[in-house]
Amino acid sequence: KAKVDALHPCDELKRIAKELDCEMTEKEFAKHMDNIDPLQSLRQDFYYPKMKEVLGTDLSLVDPDEDCVYFCGNSLGLCPKNTKKYMDVELNKWAKIGVQGHLQGEGMPWAKCDECLDADMAKLVGGRPGEVAIMNGLTVNLHLLLISFYRPTAKRHKIMCESKAFPSDHYTFQSQIKLHGFDPETSLLCVEPRKGEMTLRSEDILAKIEEEGESIAVICFSGVQYYTGQVMDMPTITRAGHAKGCYVGFDLAHAAGNVPLYLHDWDIDFACWCTYKYINSSAGCLACIFLHDKHKHNDFPKLLGWWGHNPNTRFNMDNELDLCPGAYGYRISNPAGLLCPPLKASLEIFNKTSMEEIRAKSKLLTAYLEYCIVEKYGQTNGIAEGTLEPIDGDFKHVHVHIFTPSDPEQRGAQLSLSFSVNISYVFKELEKRGVICDERKPSVIRVSPAPLYCSFQDVQRFMEYLDQALKAAAITAALDKE
Amino acid sequence: KAKVDALHPCDELKRIAKELDCEMTEKEFAKHMDNIDPLQSLRQDFYYPKMKEVLGTDLSLVDPDEDCVYFCGNSLGLCPKNTKKYMDVELNKWAKIGVQGHLQGEGMPWAKCDECLDADMAKLVGGRPGEVAIMNGLTVNLHLLLISFYRPTAKRHKIMCESKAFPSDHYTFQSQIKLHGFDPETSLLCVEPRKGEMTLRSEDILAKIEEEGESIAVICFSGVQYYTGQVMDMPTITRAGHAKGCYVGFDLAHAAGNVPLYLHDWDIDFACWCTYKYINSSAGCLACIFLHDKHKHNDFPKLLGWWGHNPNTRFNMDNELDLCPGAYGYRISNPAGLLCPPLKASLEIFNKTSMEEIRAKSKLLTAYLEYCIVEKYGQTNGIAEGTLEPIDGDFKHVHVHIFTPSDPEQRGAQLSLSFSVNISYVFKELEKRGVICDERKPSVIRVSPAPLYCSFQDVQRFMEYLDQALKAAAITAALDKE
Ligand SMILES: Cc1ncc(COP(=O)(O)O)c(C=O)c1O
Ligand SMILES: Cc1ncc(COP(=O)(O)O)c(C=O)c1O
Repeated sequence: KAKVDALHPCDELKRIAKELDCEMTEKEFAKHMDNIDPLQSLRQDFYYPKMKEVLGTDLSLVDPDEDCVYFCGNSLGLCPKNTKKYMDVELNKWAKIGVQGHLQGEGMPWAKCDECLDADMAKLVGGRPGEVAIMNGLTVNLHLLLISFYRPTAKRHKIMCESKAFPSDHYTFQSQIKLHGFDPETSLLCVEPRKGEMTLRSEDILAKIEEEGESIAVICFSGVQYYTGQVMDMPTITRAGHAKGCYVGFDLAHAAGNVPLYLHDWDIDFACWCTYKYINSSAGCLACIFLHDKHKHNDFPKLLGWWGHNPNTRFNMDNELDLCPGAYGYRISNPAGLLCPPLKASLEIFNKTSMEEIRAKSKLLTAYLEYCIVEKYGQTNGIAEGTLEPIDGDFKHVHVHIFTPSDPEQRGAQLSLSFSVNISYVFKELEKRGVICDERKPSVIRVSPAPLYCSFQDVQRFMEYLDQALKAAAITAALDKE
Repeated sequence: KAKVDALHPCDELKRIAKELDCEMTEKEFAKHMDNIDPLQSLRQDFYYPKMKEVLGTDLSLVDPDEDCVYFCGNSLGLCPKNTKKYMDVELNKWAKIGVQGHLQGEGMPWAKCDECLDADMAKLVGGRPGEVAIMNGLTVNLHLLLISFYRPTAKRHKIMCESKAFPSDHYTFQSQIKLHGFDPETSLLCVEPRKGEMTLRSEDILAKIEEEGESIAVICFSGVQYYTGQVMDMPTITRAGHAKGCYVGFDLAHAAGNVPLYLHDWDIDFACWCTYKYINSSAGCLACIFLHDKHKHNDFPKLLGWWGHNPNTRFNMDNELDLCPGAYGYRISNPAGLLCPPLKASLEIFNKTSMEEIRAKSKLLTAYLEYCIVEKYGQTNGIAEGTLEPIDGDFKHVHVHIFTPSDPEQRGAQLSLSFSVNISYVFKELEKRGVICDERKPSVIRVSPAPLYCSFQDVQRFMEYLDQALKAAAITAALDKE
């Protein structure tokens, strides 16, 4: 297994193709890969949408009874089949025993429903018991953590992040800076890719930390960048930040459930993530925080609430705060009982495997997707977004550019694609063929074969539909121009 | 109708009893009251738990097939029957179309599920369009509002609240004060009831505002106090606070859906509330904020997120904040799609009536409960909590003290009871008889006949079980002592 991991996943795929004596782009190959996929059966644990159900599909172009191609787990994960069962348990409990369900009855006692799940959640991110709490939305959590970790002084007042951070994070940083009377113009330090490049180089981040570290209070990058799909070198950035006396945290929205994380061992100070993407917990479901054990007994400023109070004495109601140590101390409001069922259903699926096993499949799956795209449409990295000239109507010259790093260590499941035709056309044509992915302005289509429920044959089907879609898009674009 | 309202609800009950020529404590009376109750049919819109389902019931003491006595709507409202139907719509949508459900499909598009409900929510509290947003948990929202409204200066640095505020609010005030470098010892001003009294007098609050107003940044009381059930005089406190240049807000956890509120007309600056009590939305479900229109375009500090961004341009992802005016600008994270179904189911029931109609019934119902208790167990107000001597075992001398104001304008549905026997015994014996209410340390049992689903006959049954429970509790207490 160690040997296999050492190979570039594409070489591994080539090795297997050679053994099979077939081309990687052939159906037979994809079928074989699915047959030997140890996670193959997990797809059955999810509702995988059908062609005839998803909207915008032209049913004359596809088989209505086939599965759609769901490459959108980076945005919203699929529904675990057990969700409804667990939800019904909670709804029936409410119907039958009302308020008693806080502590009694079947399912998860609402007063502790988050606590029922956080050990499993901690496993996904390499957190120790007590380092993870499940609460609120992601951006809310980022604020709560920054209230503790961002305490700017005249000398050390900056927040460092990537340029083009996810908008919500960007606004979070700006408003935190303003809250303390500083100016985002001078206190928000956004590291930019080099000219003509789309992704950040670790060396540039480290150089910036070296240069500006003394004035930086908090370094907060995405674990996986939403737009480019790049995985940041979290342990290295953390070490460099700590060497300069900065706190280092990560937004793991696109990392949690996607790539293995070792937050404790990496010595990361804090992190937060949502669970509706690769963790399949439903739209806007509960988010999480990680607080490193070394900060367990911190006396940083916090926005406090009764849910951070020691549960054993919480209902004494004497207004004497007995704060939980660690992540639990950051909980504020009581948790939503009806958000835990989907989370439980999803975590149970993760419990059948491990992030390492998921990652092994994911590397092969995404490398396969990359290989097929590059084989067919030409270019990998090396050219900047937007530099492609649209050659409308001339299908032979349509090309697709992947600007996610081709180094498998620097990416998760997602590939970010730009096209020599307008993406709105491409997106529309993909949709007609039941390919669910997402469009992100200004010019990217993100495709993510999530390894828990996507297959190598999905990649095959995607390629077929992409080919049709590009042809159709090129024609539409040409017609529109006339 | 105006005439009826002008009567003390207890006089109204007496008038009806006289017409009927029966005692108010007789079954016939309660039956009649239910028959003429215009909200009578709404009970059918909820799952009202059965004796045989609720836990801790001794089925030899009650009829297993009867409804329990659910007097706990102040803590967790009952489950609206349509919840499951609406939940299934969302779960099926997720299963069938995945991420497309954000904007398409049946039910509520997840990206706007809160917006589908906030006009109905605003009606419950007297908010105008744009003044109410549905988001997060209650205490989280209180923090977000205080980030805007509590901006202490050396001269004006205090937060005024009631003594024995709900713990979460108390910790919120303390931590906000500390966040700004002030000391809760000197900056948190808790107004205490007079010696020997349990509830606050408006005149004392007003005197305190007059006295300390210049040093107060924010006045934040409960609309209805969780422990005593007292309704605060919100418009008067607001006027007095404004006259001294303070911002005035309210925690409406126990007020929303319980008493009519006119937040806009009362000129209240801000408010927040949860929806799982009288609004029946399930444990820990979404909370709300109210921001008065006059603050619609404020430039106060805020903790910002992408959900506060103009929805029409939110997905441009250009990191140029185009903040929604009003309450929407306080939204941070995307809303939970699976929390809106129960809220929708509950608001639909409210839409069949009005807060005024609900209040009219509630006044009669709670007055009826008060009348029955006072008739049987002696004392109303006038003595302080804890001054009753336990006369264990001597049932003739068991008495029950109601320390919620007897003025119907100064209370909602809830009555807070203390007893001359240990409440743990009483609570246990009530539970055996299927009476669901709640115990709040140190010494209160709160009973709330929520007018949407509780009946006059429930009050009757409650009285029967209370009588049995007190007898049993007195005996157990005596035995335990021996
Ligand atoms: C008056 C009051 N404030 C705050 C809260 C805390 O609510 P949450 O846990 O939703 O923040 C409650 C909960 O019962 C409450 O009654
Ligand atoms: C990187 C990143 N940060 C923050 C968010 C915002 O999440 P929420 O709306 O749960 O706060 C997202 C949502 O997609 C995200 O991808």
